[in-house]
Amino acid sequence: MELEKAIAIVLKRNRLNSKLSQEELAHRCEIDRTYISLLEREKRKPTLNVLFKICENLKIKPSDFISEVEKTIEEN
Amino acid sequence: MELEKAIAIVLKRNRLNSKLSQEELAHRCEIDRTYISLLEREKRKPTLNVLFKICENLKIKPSDFISEVEKTIEEN
Repeated sequence: MELEKAIAIVLKRNRLNSKLSQEELAHRCEIDRTYISLLEREKRKPTLNVLFKICENLKIKPSDFISEVEKTIEEN
Repeated sequence: MELEKAIAIVLKRNRLNSKLSQEELAHRCEIDRTYISLLEREKRKPTLNVLFKICENLKIKPSDFISEVEKTIEEN
């Protein structure tokens, strides 16, 4: 599986676990309100800065997020 | 410590462990030959795609790289 697809899957799963809408998560991260939606549709390549902000607001460690991405790539 | 600084430190440490020059690592990652130098001088914000390519060529897991970045931020 491609990286963008794995990021999209892991992001959406963790966002739904946190019960946040795409817009609410974007707002908390102080990024454009469409950006989470774009990531979940594999339309953007996030920087580490954006990843760290997203993870902070989802209350997960960035290394755990990346670990989930690695597993998703390997398993598919 | 800021994220860019921590990325620079962890990148440089792992690159030197691999005995690769900035230019050789950039070449293997198929990115601009100045880009590793720019990252190590905190002049760029890397995407996850670039991080994954760098880690592949340094033979380390991206999640381990990010884990080192988190520790470096916490300890400084």
